[in-house]
Amino acid sequence: VGPRGTPIKYKFSVTGVRLALYGFGNVGRALARMLLATRAPFNVTALTTKSHGAVVDANGIDLDTILAGTDLPLRALPPVAVLPADVLVEVTPLDPLTGEPALGHIRDALRAGMHVVTANKGPIARAYRELDGLATKHDRMVRFEATLADCLPVFTLRRSALPLAKISAIRGIVSSTNNHILSAAAAGIPFEDALADAQRLGIAEADPRNDLEGHDAAAKATILANVLMDADLVPEDVSREPIDERAATAARAAAENGGRVRPLIEITRRDGKVVASFGPRRLSPMDPLFAVDDFSMGLVFETDLAGRVVVQLHDPHVDQVAYAILTDLLEISGTMPRP
Amino acid sequence: VGPRGTPIKYKFSVTGVRLALYGFGNVGRALARMLLATRAPFNVTALTTKSHGAVVDANGIDLDTILAGTDLPLRALPPVAVLPADVLVEVTPLDPLTGEPALGHIRDALRAGMHVVTANKGPIARAYRELDGLATKHDRMVRFEATLADCLPVFTLRRSALPLAKISAIRGIVSSTNNHILSAAAAGIPFEDALADAQRLGIAEADPRNDLEGHDAAAKATILANVLMDADLVPEDVSREPIDERAATAARAAAENGGRVRPLIEITRRDGKVVASFGPRRLSPMDPLFAVDDFSMGLVFETDLAGRVVVQLHDPHVDQVAYAILTDLLEISGTMPRP
Repeated sequence: VGPRGTPIKYKFSVTGVRLALYGFGNVGRALARMLLATRAPFNVTALTTKSHGAVVDANGIDLDTILAGTDLPLRALPPVAVLPADVLVEVTPLDPLTGEPALGHIRDALRAGMHVVTANKGPIARAYRELDGLATKHDRMVRFEATLADCLPVFTLRRSALPLAKISAIRGIVSSTNNHILSAAAAGIPFEDALADAQRLGIAEADPRNDLEGHDAAAKATILANVLMDADLVPEDVSREPIDERAATAARAAAENGGRVRPLIEITRRDGKVVASFGPRRLSPMDPLFAVDDFSMGLVFETDLAGRVVVQLHDPHVDQVAYAILTDLLEISGTMPRP
Repeated sequence: VGPRGTPIKYKFSVTGVRLALYGFGNVGRALARMLLATRAPFNVTALTTKSHGAVVDANGIDLDTILAGTDLPLRALPPVAVLPADVLVEVTPLDPLTGEPALGHIRDALRAGMHVVTANKGPIARAYRELDGLATKHDRMVRFEATLADCLPVFTLRRSALPLAKISAIRGIVSSTNNHILSAAAAGIPFEDALADAQRLGIAEADPRNDLEGHDAAAKATILANVLMDADLVPEDVSREPIDERAATAARAAAENGGRVRPLIEITRRDGKVVASFGPRRLSPMDPLFAVDDFSMGLVFETDLAGRVVVQLHDPHVDQVAYAILTDLLEISGTMPRP
C-alpha cells in the first residue's frame, strides 16, 4: 500500500486485488469458499483466525490449505497499516454494542489507504459518519452491504436503482431469528423450540437477547436511517418491543385468522425528524412483507422518484452473507487503479 | 459527436451531457418534467414530437417552453448521426412487433458513437444481441431499464447486486393492465370496466389485444431470458394463454377462497434450454407475488450465489418510466469521458 494520496500500482496479472481477511468464522470461511468457487479476481494476502493464528503472504495464501484446518504460523497479525493488502475484509466477532475491535481495524485500514468491506453492524451503526468521512478523506471506499440483511440489495440498490431519489420511509424485516420464531409460532411450534432451531443453524447467537430484545434490529434500523435517510441516530434512539412468548402467542392467533405477525422495523420522518421503531406487527396478506417467511428478510422503500420499491431475500444461508461481501469487493475492484 | 473511436470532449460546465429526445408523448414529457425537477446534469439538444415538429439547438432547448405546447420549428429531425448529442433517448411510439422505427434510430445512434437509452421493448426483444454487439463495437452503452417494468430494478439490479451470479429461473408480473384486470376481478369489478379503466389511465393501449393476448408479456419475457439468462428467444417462442373473461372468473373464484390469480411470466431452464410462458396462475398468500396487486409489478429471481431475490414496484405511474430512463442516463453519464 502506497503512502496516502499516491496512486498505487497493482500486479493484477499475478495477484488480483489483495485482501486482508480479518476473521475466519462461518462468514470468513464461506467467503473463502466462494472466492475459490467463483475464481473472482481477488487474492488473500493476510488472514487471521480467532484461535488458530494468522498468516501474511504477499504472494497470496492458498485458501484450500487454510480451509482444510491447518494451524497458521503467526500468533497475531501485524498492524493493519503494514499489511500487503488493498482491501480490509472485516468479519471478526465483536462486541455488538461498542463495535470493537472491528471499528479500530476499519479506522486503521482507511487511514492507511486501504478500502474496507465489513459484515459487522456495530461499526457502521455507531460510526457511519466518521467512517464515511475518513473514507472520503483518503479517497477510499467503505462498503457494508452484508451488515443489513445478507445479500438483500440495499446499498447497491440505492446506488444503482435509486439515484437522486429521496427515501421518505422504510419498513422491513431484517432479523432472521425473530422472523423464524414468529413464523414457527404461526405453525404451532413452541417459542423455545424455534429459538433452539435458529441457534443450532448458527443464525441466532448463543445469547439470543441481542435478537429477541431487538438490539440487532435497532442497529440495522440505525444504519438504514443514517445511510439512506440522512439521519443521525444511535441504536438507543430506536424504540423496541421484544419478540417474546406473548408475541409468539399473537402470531399463532393471527395465523388462525389468515394473518401473520412479523418482526418489523419502521423508519419514518415525523416533523422533520427521523424516528425508528422495532416490534411485532400484524400484517394482512396484501402487505408486501406478508410472504417474507421464516429466515427470509425484506424491505419496503417509499421514495419520491421511484415510488414504492420492495426487495426480498428468501431463505438465505451463510453463503448469502459471503456473497454480499463479494459484491462489495467487485464494486471496489471496478474502481481500483488499473496497472 | 466525434468520429468513431476518438475521445469526445464535452463542455459540462455549460451544457451537461447532451440528449436527443426522440418522442414526446406521455413518457417523453414525464422525462422532461423530471429533468427540470431534479436539475439532473443533462441538456436536451434535439427533440422530436409526433405531430408538432422537431427542434435542434446545440446550446440546449428550453424544456419549459416545449412543455407549454409550442409548435416546433422543424418538420422532422435531421439524421441521428449529425445531431449535436451524446445520448439518444428513444421513446417514440412504435410497431410493437417489428420494433420500428425505434430499432433503426438505435442502430444509427450507436454507429454514430452515441449512447442509447430506450423505453421501447420492441428493439430489445427483437435485436438485443445485435444492439449489444454494436454498442460494444463502438464502445458505447445501450440501456433499457424502462422496457421491463418501469423503474422496477432489473438490469441495474443484475449489474450491481447480482454480479457473477447465475440466474436459473425468473417468475413475475410484468403487465400492469393484465394485473389490474385480474385484481379488479378479485374485487368483483367486471372485465370490461377494469379494461376501460386501464385505457382511461393511459396504461392499456387503445387496442388492448397486445396486453390481453400476452404479446407485451412475451416481449418482456424474451428480454429477460436473453439478457439475464443468456438465451436466444424471440417473442413467438413464449407460450401464451390469454387474460380473458374466463381468467377473470377464475380470479373472482380464487379471491373468494383467499387466493389470487396473477398474470405470470415463467422462465426456466429445461434440458439445457430456456423456455418461457405467460398466463393466468393461481397464487397462495405465501407466494412473494401474491401482494403485487393492481398496477404493481414484481419479479422473483432464482440464483446460485444470491439465493432467491424478489423485487417489486407498487402502484407505478408514468413518472416511474421516466425515472427508469433517468437512472440509465445517470449510469451512462458516470462513464462519459470527462472534459
